[in-house]
Parts: sequence; structure tokens; C-alpha cells
Amino acid sequence: MHELEKLIDRIVDRVNINLRKPAFDVGPYIRRLIELEQFVRFYGFYGLTQHHPIHFLFINSSIAGSYFLGKCIVDNSVLYKTDVRGDELKAKGDCFECQSLTIPLHDDEVIHIKDSYLIKTLVHNHSHDPESPEKFFIQNSASMHYANIHGSPIEGCFLGPFATVDLTRLHDCVIGAHAYVMAGELAHCYIKPGQIWIQGGDYFNFMYRFPEEVLDKYIHLQPGCHPTGIFMDFVGEHKADFESVFKVVQSSRPIPVPEGASLSRYAVVKGNTEISENVLVSQRAYIENSWIGRSSNAQENCYIINSRLEGQNITAHGGKVIHARLGEKVFVGFNSFLRGTPECELRIGSGSIVMPHTIIDLEEPLEIPEGRIVWGYIRGAEDLEENSLPLERLAAINDRFELGRMSFDGNGLQLVEAFRHRIDHILEANGANFDGTAKHGHAQRARNISFNTIQPYPEGNFKGLCPRIEISQ
Amino acid sequence: MHELEKLIDRIVDRVNINLRKPAFDVGPYIRRLIELEQFVRFYGFYGLTQHHPIHFLFINSSIAGSYFLGKCIVDNSVLYKTDVRGDELKAKGDCFECQSLTIPLHDDEVIHIKDSYLIKTLVHNHSHDPESPEKFFIQNSASMHYANIHGSPIEGCFLGPFATVDLTRLHDCVIGAHAYVMAGELAHCYIKPGQIWIQGGDYFNFMYRFPEEVLDKYIHLQPGCHPTGIFMDFVGEHKADFESVFKVVQSSRPIPVPEGASLSRYAVVKGNTEISENVLVSQRAYIENSWIGRSSNAQENCYIINSRLEGQNITAHGGKVIHARLGEKVFVGFNSFLRGTPECELRIGSGSIVMPHTIIDLEEPLEIPEGRIVWGYIRGAEDLEENSLPLERLAAINDRFELGRMSFDGNGLQLVEAFRHRIDHILEANGANFDGTAKHGHAQRARNISFNTIQPYPEGNFKGLCPRIEISQ
Repeated sequence: MHELEKLIDRIVDRVNINLRKPAFDVGPYIRRLIELEQFVRFYGFYGLTQHHPIHFLFINSSIAGSYFLGKCIVDNSVLYKTDVRGDELKAKGDCFECQSLTIPLHDDEVIHIKDSYLIKTLVHNHSHDPESPEKFFIQNSASMHYANIHGSPIEGCFLGPFATVDLTRLHDCVIGAHAYVMAGELAHCYIKPGQIWIQGGDYFNFMYRFPEEVLDKYIHLQPGCHPTGIFMDFVGEHKADFESVFKVVQSSRPIPVPEGASLSRYAVVKGNTEISENVLVSQRAYIENSWIGRSSNAQENCYIINSRLEGQNITAHGGKVIHARLGEKVFVGFNSFLRGTPECELRIGSGSIVMPHTIIDLEEPLEIPEGRIVWGYIRGAEDLEENSLPLERLAAINDRFELGRMSFDGNGLQLVEAFRHRIDHILEANGANFDGTAKHGHAQRARNISFNTIQPYPEGNFKGLCPRIEISQ
Repeated sequence: MHELEKLIDRIVDRVNINLRKPAFDVGPYIRRLIELEQFVRFYGFYGLTQHHPIHFLFINSSIAGSYFLGKCIVDNSVLYKTDVRGDELKAKGDCFECQSLTIPLHDDEVIHIKDSYLIKTLVHNHSHDPESPEKFFIQNSASMHYANIHGSPIEGCFLGPFATVDLTRLHDCVIGAHAYVMAGELAHCYIKPGQIWIQGGDYFNFMYRFPEEVLDKYIHLQPGCHPTGIFMDFVGEHKADFESVFKVVQSSRPIPVPEGASLSRYAVVKGNTEISENVLVSQRAYIENSWIGRSSNAQENCYIINSRLEGQNITAHGGKVIHARLGEKVFVGFNSFLRGTPECELRIGSGSIVMPHTIIDLEEPLEIPEGRIVWGYIRGAEDLEENSLPLERLAAINDRFELGRMSFDGNGLQLVEAFRHRIDHILEANGANFDGTAKHGHAQRARNISFNTIQPYPEGNFKGLCPRIEISQ
């Protein structure tokens, strides 16, 4: 038996031990899911710039096709085409504010992935766990295709495909397919597939759940099988384009990259596409035949096709925008799937917020007015009524409120403010406000990255595993 | 001033301190010789297989375009497009025989390059220094284009372009352009350009020196300039072909690679070329429109063009064979330049030995009979008379002997035996004798290498330098 297979078995046992309550066996989901050959086919790559602190350490791990930036440790883990972005980690001397406390960091924060198996997962942002500000750990955990682990240390967890854990600390939890959780801290929970849950401390609680029959069409997970459904078919159709960008060492820029903007050499750009100033296009983003307005960002695993984005648009990790026209400062949350067609175009007015994991799959043209908040499952105007609100209406709520499958408790203004604050933070961090000399963000810092590639042992007992590698300043 | 420029200045000072006798200033030869931009353009690459012990350590160094295999440490050094092959190093427990002594190794041997600047240099084979069997050091030294450091630890040395030091330990020596030295141990020597010197202990001494005006045509070095001459023009003409093999991550095999043979993905293969069983084609080898017979090896920086090699042919590091037909087991030594033309073909009979650094540049067709040893400068039949001997005639010499510019002292049989022994060893080490199950060599072990690439900082103060990288098992 190969060492890599043994490693995967060890990971399965460790996750299962943590998940004895809720009783859950991750084995059938990840064991033998990916052929050994696949781990040899793809190289890992880490970005080197003068702007990011450096410490990479890989110990007895497989990192096929995975991307690293900033400070990361990967220890007895399997990362398959996973993005670990340590470019927003906290630094030595920073202070972590929590309630009335201010905790100064005695060291740079490091993302530490141990005894875990992450498939096509995105790990980003800094730990929002006040208990370990220097270490963002992912331990004894497994995550499936296109899961997002965002500012969320996890321990003993299983994340289904397209699941997102956002600014939440998790112990021994199972997060179902396409479920989204932002809830502070959770232990021993089972979050059902398609559950969208946003809890703002004691201030508010937002809940929505996709109808099972709808969710199954888009993403469905069975033990021992790859995930299936429209989401998987969609990414599958665009796979080949990515293979071509990965097989050259340095690619020439396919389109002009204006002042203050950056276009990852590991992004796909096709058709008549234009990007404007201060735009960030991250690795594994796919832009086809679209216009990306000033200060927008297109994050990892996002797809923007046949669309026009007016400016300051955020398309978050895994967001998909097809045949759409988005006004200024429209926010499209994690793993949202917005699919218009040439006949049924989607228009979204300025300042609207598309909540994470929203599915808009049009059967008729649809125009969403300015300043709306949108969620759930929308095929046309009728669904929109049940799955959106004007932001000012939400802001006026201060009690329980229900609409269709959505229920809200608490202070609407707090939710609206939280979103607005976050959107401004994301734009700032990504360099949207760069003025040519100051207010740098990722768009400017990522302009000049060199990528180092890591190949595993090509054959033998250690086939698919990397030797121990440490890179430091 | 960039850190890389400071590093080069420090190296210059260290080499000069060592070379105060013979008084020699390496500064003008290497300072600002290569543009800073060039150090950013090329990636270093190290090979990973299950057959080679692994320990790479790069500290405060630039390794642009350099290749590594086996155990290597690069410490405060600049390696520009240099090959460091640690695949023939001694292993822990091996015994080093020297005179009547047997010295067991307490550790694996490591190539340790410190405070040195090597340009397009080849470092290979294990240390033949009995005084440090575990450490093959290259220290406080500088070497120029296409120098070969073969089994030769050096300290405080300057090697000119196309110079070769072979199984010789050097302290504080200057080796002129295209000079070849195999002489046990040397200190504070200046070896003139074009000097060929082979000393077999007390047994024999072979000397030849190229006429200055001839050598200048082929290779000429002036302070502050790149080397010039026919050798540099020749490699320059083929540069573009190499750029194309370096810019893809994995290349498909351009021609079939038979059982037991290996063709480096960093070699150039063009035209109607065929390689036979058990053939080794190393990285940076160039094969065009040629037939490479069974069990031959084409080593780093060699060029084989419009030629036919019958089998068991060795084309050593930097050897060039153009418009030639070589019989079986013809040996072509380091940096030899054998250039026929369509009108003036070169034929060399089986079992002949072309000594290192020989220049055969034909103005008429030439046939060298079987079993000859050839050296020096040859344009046609007349030169051949003065620059070759039947091996059995050389074997019969047991005194002083002179022919043209060559002088020989001692026992000819010893020289012939030494060459034959070495040729057999090279064939064996390269896998020429592989029988499908046993007698593996480089040709078999190199069949499946994965290459990891190392890019330097792309900008800023550390531009062109790598972070600290350590790779271990």
C-alpha cells in the first residue's frame, strides 16, 4: 500500500474520532475518491513577493495543484487543488480586539493545516478565533469540492461540497453541501445541506434553507461518489481552459492590465474581456467575454461570463455571474450561482447585496432594483418577491420577520451595517481604493509574484507525496 | 544597491584574497557580467526521484536556471545556469580507497558550494579528495561559461570559460580558458589557456598546449567582457531551442524512448533523431538529426548534430559532434569540438579515444582509424599525423616521447589502461549495461524524474535572490 493511501486512512480515522458525535463516517466520502495518479499529475505552487511574509513548511503531505501565499504549514495532510491564502494573516504586534479585550500578537499568524484532507477548498482570511490569534488551525478535518474555509479555524469537521464556514470557529461539526454558516462558535452540530445561517451575536439571526429537491439538482453528495449536479457540471465544462494555463511556466498577459490592477497568470481570460484600474483577478478565476469595472475584484473559483460589472463589484470566492449586468458596488457572495441566458438576462441594480450561496437561475429576464438584498432560489420575478427585500426595509425590522422560506429575528439594521462594513473592508483589502501611491491592497501587491512549483515523488512508495520542504526568509 | 550585487562583490573579495598568489583579480571577469534582470528571468530546478538521496539547502543565494540532483548545499553563492549533479556522490558506509588506506564514510557525501559564483558550469561526480570524503566543497571560487568541475573540490580558484578540472583538488589556482587539468592536487598554480595536462601520479605525464592564435579563434576571454570566439558563437546559435523546452512545465516526449533509455525533458531533440536502448540523454544536451546507438550517453551541454553514433559512445560534458560518424565505443572527452561539414565528413573508427578539449574542425574529409588516441588541433589528415597515435603504440611507450606540440613522459600503458577503465566505468554508471532487470545506471534512474522549480524574488531589494529553502526526506 502506498504511503499516501496510508496517510489518507490515518486522516479518516482522526476525523471520525472527532465526529463520533454527531456519528459520521467520512471514510466513504474521501477514501479512494481521487486516483493516486492524480496526485502525481499536478504541481503545488507558492507565491513569492516582497510584500508577503514567508514561511512555508510541508511535512509528509501531498499538495497536488494547491496554491500557497503567506505563512502556511501543511503537516501530514492532503491538499488537492486547494488554495491557502495567507495574505491577510495578522502580524506580530497587531492587536486582536474581542469584546472589551485587546490581545496583542506575540508572533505572526500562521495557517496550520494538520491531519486533514481538503479537496478544491479555499482557505483565506485570518483567524477570527480570539483563543489562538497566532495560529489559524485546520485539524483532523475533511472538506469537499469548492468548500470555503474563511477566517474559520476548524477541528474535527467535515465540510460538504460548496459548503462555506465564514468567521466561525467549529469543533466536531458536519456542514452539509452548499450550507453556509456564520455563527461565532459551534460544536457537535450537523448543519443540513442547503442551510444558510447567519447569526450576528445577540443582534440578529438569519435563516434560509433550500428545498431539498432544488438543491439536489444543483449539488448532490452520496457516499463513495463524486458530487453531482449542475454546479459540478458547470465547473467541469471549464476545466480544460485551466489545464492550459497550468502547463506553461510563464504566460504572457492575454489582455492589457491597467495601472493598479492585477491579473493572476493562473486565471483564465477569454473572449472580448476588459479589466479596469485597481481590479483584482485571482488565480482560478475565469473571465470570459466580460467587462470588469474599476476597483472590482474577481476572487478564486469565480466565473464571470458574458457580463458587465460597472465597478467596485465583489464576486466572492466561487461566485458565478453569467449573462448579467451588475450596477456599481453589487456584492455577490460566496458560491452564488447567478445564471442568465442570452434571452433571459439578469440585471442587478447598484448597491444590491446577493447573499452567499444564492441561486438565481433564470427562466425569464429579471431586473433586480437598486439597494436590494437577495437570497435563496430565484428563477424569475415571482421568486424574487419571496427572496429579496429593499435594504431599507430590512434595516427597519427589529423583531421576527418571515418571507417565504426565510426567517429573520432581531435587528435588521445590524445585518445591513455588518454587510456594508464588510463590503468596504473587502474593497479596501483588495486595493480598490489605491490612489497611485497609497492605499495598496491585493490588486497592487499581486502584480509581481513569482511562483515556485513543487512536484511530488513520481513513483515508488512515496508516490504523490512531497519531501519535507521549508522555505523561509 | 541590490543584495545580489552586494553578494557578488563579497564573492569577488573572497576569491581575490585566495588568489593573492598568483596575483589575480576576478572582479572584472564576473562583476556586472550578467544583468540583474537575467537572474529573475530563469528558474532553478531540482530533480526528485525515488533513487537519489535528497537534501537541498539554498541559503542567501541566486540559482537562476540552475539544475540540482542529489545532495547539494548552496550557501551565499551565485549559480547561473549551472548544473550540480549529486547523483554519483558517495554514500554513508561506502569506503574510500586511497593508497593503502580504506576510509569508511560516516555520512552521505554532499556537494557544498559556498561563497562562489559559477556561470554555466557543470559540477559532477564525487569528491576525489581523500581528506574530506563526505564533503565535496567548492568555496571562494569563480568559474566561467561551460567550465567543468568534475570530482574536483576547489578552493579559492578561478576557472576560465571551457576550462575543466578533473579528479584534481585545487587550492588558489587560476585555470585558463579551455585548459584541462587532471593532476591529483595543485596549489597556487596558473594554468595557461589551452593547456592540456594529464598526470597519472608517478606513472605518466601528458602535456599539450594549443597555439595561442588558434585558441583565440575558438575561445577568448578579456576582463569585463563576455567570452568570444567560435565556441561561444556555436552555443549562441542554439540558445533559442533551449528556451522553448524551459518554458513548459511538462513536455511530451518528442521521440520514442526505448526500454532502459532516458531522454531529459530539458534536452533539445530535433530533426530525424533516434535514440536506442539504454541511452542516456541528459538535460541541456542537444541532439539534431542524429542516430544514437545502443548504450551511448549524451551528457550535459553536449551537441550531436547530423551524426551517427554506432553504440556505447560517450559524448562527455560539453562535447560537440557535428557531421560525424563514430564507430562503436568511441569516447569524446569534455568540451571537445568535432566539427565536420556535409562536404568534409568526420569518421572515427571503433574504440578510439578523443581526448578532452580536442578541436577537430575539418577543412577536408577525415577518417580516423580504429583504436586511435587523438588530441590537440586537427583540420585534416596532415594534422592528424601530429595529433594522434594508435593506442597500442602509446601503450608501448615507456620513456619520454614527443609528437608535434605533445610531450609524454612515463608509461603509456598506464594512460591507456586508465582511459579504458574510466570509459567502462562511465558506461556502467550511465546504465549502458542494463539487462532489463539489473545493472541499473543513470539512464534507468532518470526515466522518471519530477522537477521542482525555484523562482527568486521578482523585485525589491532581494530581487534575483531566493529565500532560504530546505528540502529533505
